[in-house]
Amino acid sequence: MQTIQQSFKIEYNYSVFFTEYLFDHSNTLLADFFKKFSEEGFQRKALVVVDEGFAAHHPGLADQIRTYFAAAVPNIQLAADIIMVPGGEASKNDPELFNKLAQAVDTYGIDRHSFVIGIGGGAVLDLVGYAAAVSHRGIKLIRIPTTVLSQNDSGVGVKNGINFHGKKNFLGTFAPPVAVFNDLTFLRTLDDRDWRGGIAEAIKVSLIKDQAFFEWIEEKATALANRDEAAMSYLIHRCAEMHTDHIAGGDPFEFGSSRPLDFGHWAAHKLEYLTDFQVRHGEAVAIGIALDCVYSEKVGKLPESDLNRILDVLNKLGFELYHPKLAENDKINLRNGLQEFREHLGGRLTIMLLDKIGKGVEVHELDADIISQSVDYLESSKIIHTL
Amino acid sequence: MQTIQQSFKIEYNYSVFFTEYLFDHSNTLLADFFKKFSEEGFQRKALVVVDEGFAAHHPGLADQIRTYFAAAVPNIQLAADIIMVPGGEASKNDPELFNKLAQAVDTYGIDRHSFVIGIGGGAVLDLVGYAAAVSHRGIKLIRIPTTVLSQNDSGVGVKNGINFHGKKNFLGTFAPPVAVFNDLTFLRTLDDRDWRGGIAEAIKVSLIKDQAFFEWIEEKATALANRDEAAMSYLIHRCAEMHTDHIAGGDPFEFGSSRPLDFGHWAAHKLEYLTDFQVRHGEAVAIGIALDCVYSEKVGKLPESDLNRILDVLNKLGFELYHPKLAENDKINLRNGLQEFREHLGGRLTIMLLDKIGKGVEVHELDADIISQSVDYLESSKIIHTL
Ligand SMILES: NC(=O)c1ccc[n+]([C@@H]2O[C@H](COP(=O)([O-])OP(=O)(O)OC[C@H]3O[C@@H](n4cnc5c(N)ncnc54)[C@H](O)[C@@H]3O)[C@@H](O)[C@H]2O)c1
Ligand SMILES: NC(=O)c1ccc[n+]([C@@H]2O[C@H](COP(=O)([O-])OP(=O)(O)OC[C@H]3O[C@@H](n4cnc5c(N)ncnc54)[C@H](O)[C@@H]3O)[C@@H](O)[C@H]2O)c1
Ligand SMILES: [Zn+2]
Ligand SMILES: [Zn+2]
Repeated sequence: MQTIQQSFKIEYNYSVFFTEYLFDHSNTLLADFFKKFSEEGFQRKALVVVDEGFAAHHPGLADQIRTYFAAAVPNIQLAADIIMVPGGEASKNDPELFNKLAQAVDTYGIDRHSFVIGIGGGAVLDLVGYAAAVSHRGIKLIRIPTTVLSQNDSGVGVKNGINFHGKKNFLGTFAPPVAVFNDLTFLRTLDDRDWRGGIAEAIKVSLIKDQAFFEWIEEKATALANRDEAAMSYLIHRCAEMHTDHIAGGDPFEFGSSRPLDFGHWAAHKLEYLTDFQVRHGEAVAIGIALDCVYSEKVGKLPESDLNRILDVLNKLGFELYHPKLAENDKINLRNGLQEFREHLGGRLTIMLLDKIGKGVEVHELDADIISQSVDYLESSKIIHTL
Repeated sequence: MQTIQQSFKIEYNYSVFFTEYLFDHSNTLLADFFKKFSEEGFQRKALVVVDEGFAAHHPGLADQIRTYFAAAVPNIQLAADIIMVPGGEASKNDPELFNKLAQAVDTYGIDRHSFVIGIGGGAVLDLVGYAAAVSHRGIKLIRIPTTVLSQNDSGVGVKNGINFHGKKNFLGTFAPPVAVFNDLTFLRTLDDRDWRGGIAEAIKVSLIKDQAFFEWIEEKATALANRDEAAMSYLIHRCAEMHTDHIAGGDPFEFGSSRPLDFGHWAAHKLEYLTDFQVRHGEAVAIGIALDCVYSEKVGKLPESDLNRILDVLNKLGFELYHPKLAENDKINLRNGLQEFREHLGGRLTIMLLDKIGKGVEVHELDADIISQSVDYLESSKIIHTL
């Protein structure tokens, strides 16, 4: 019997909108978006899930959302309850939260033509995105990211996930949202660490792909450190754009094993673990970038002057570039991270290093001694930040 | 700030192979398939998960698989254990089985470049497919279906799923396999009900799309009822081909709400529930088809002569075409199934009826009285099968 050869393509489209005061009655962006889902005699539903850490700073939020929908989005029926989930990594560690969301989808009759709207940081959006992606085999997801990192990186991409038996992002899918709404004003209540953290991802993409963007960040480093909103607005937009371009232009669902956007991430992932997530993702990425830049310089790729400029910007923004856990157990813990990263990629190890600012280069192994020396370099040149 | 417009396409390709004695050392099909995954200095892994109900009839299976891989597939390293899961719907009802599979993926270091190989009926393949699809955001899945239904329908498609809080297929994804291997000889140990059940799906596709195929089934009805393997081989191939063509040509991930392949399924789903899955999927589909054909005739679409031919074929194959649960509570239970099917599709109800043999036609409502009359018709014309 002849082999059947199956072949098809799936097309995904979504917009990332930039706005301020999203739920203000005078802002029609969200209402306009929903208009295109109007259909005679048929009301779609929406289930809103909010990050408690965000909600704590925005006490009127639930009412504001209800008022907005009642006034401006007649074709969408909000579920009776707005669901709250704890913010941060805790949301991805507790399988009961996943069950709670799946149960809510069922309870409120949210079907494949309805929406789940996630509002919060990257962690909550990862949880909500996962629950939406697997309930009824996929409900339309709208992301409203409320941290710098989620507005310029995690929230505009195609991945979601939760942790399983202590393994980070072990369960998840590739599932593009139907829309992302980035509201700059939501960032005002972030603490300094989370404001800063997301900037590391912008530095990351600039270093591997766009010298001009790096130079812009260099120029604006003080403004960014001082929470200048205009500067942050541009940084987020450019970084989000580079992420979405990269996803569309490359391998959106990561079937291969090259992951250029994971520059600086092999050590970052390990450091997050070693510190039990006390070092946050963006902070860990800043250290990971610093480490891989020093390494790049030591193996004769990155010019020393470039290295110094990179470390300068990171320092100016207030990032710590060293952590004692990097040197723990004679750095064996850290080097294990390399092995774990290989497993995470599957197959061949592929690590991004830098040739120069704005130009990454992939290699397939790292030398343990040079990693060690790079850690020593970061330790010896560390700056004590007075926060 | 300007809106970012994201857009990309994902391409999926996979083959459905037809063979006999798949794990026999003289059969190189599987080994040949894996050859294209050879890569210098890098061994991929594979985790095999088997349906216990199938394994019970094939006691030497685990050893045969190990011997086959050791001899013919040097580039793939089998996980130390072959995982067994209970067969049938039980596998989709127990969340612990999902956890067990995800845990095995972790324990055996199965990464995104490794394989999960599921062997069994549609239920086990749905569970294994789901666990593979969400572990590490998707591991390559190979399906080896062992029932007629899974070889000609569920196993060659793109869906997976498990039940959640009693809701059938509530959790799942669209996740194409990397290959499907249909072994005709595996069907020998099926009981008559499962042998017959899968034929209902072939009748279904023939009725909505291919008169010639229906006439072929008509001609071979007795041979099929008598477990003629040559006839079954052709039936499975043609049915699988029609399913894969339909998926590729239409809306593979079901973003719309039309589901032509769900002909006969609205009542079938409800009947499976009402009988607590005592009526199996294929058996329920046969009844669902009969019901919707009678309905089609009653509303003046399907000619009476066509209806009689259809009911004749179903009878000849040994399907029961009536079940007392259809009439229970004055048929209100059944009609609720229509409402549930609407929710399942999301939004507008779309039901396939027949214009004639080989030509389906979609409608957006069904009349409750005519449903009732159709049930009565099936009851009055029922044949008592002596099994
Ligand atoms: N899916 C992806 O592609 C991807 C990419 C990178 C990172 N991530 C994930 O993102 C997570 C990190 O996300 P994050 O950096 O946004 O942090 P986070 O989600 O952990 O949030 C940090 C804290 O800020 C609070 N918060 C959120 N918005 C706030 C606001 N506007 N004001 C005050 N507090 C607020 C949260 O409640 C939380 O306590 C990690 O789990 C990481 O794995 C995912
Ligand atoms: N994913 C999809 O697109 C899709 C489509 C249709 C149906 N399904 C699902 O498929 C399931 C039904 O699948 P099914 O009809 O294959 O039945 P099944 O998987 O329930 O298996 C029926 C019984 O046969 C046993 N068995 C399997 N192979 C055998 C063999 N060769 N010899 C002897 N016994 C064997 C099993 O252990 C089980 O006890 C349902 O859960 C249904 O929801 C999925
Ligand atoms: Zn990151
Ligand atoms: Zn079916």
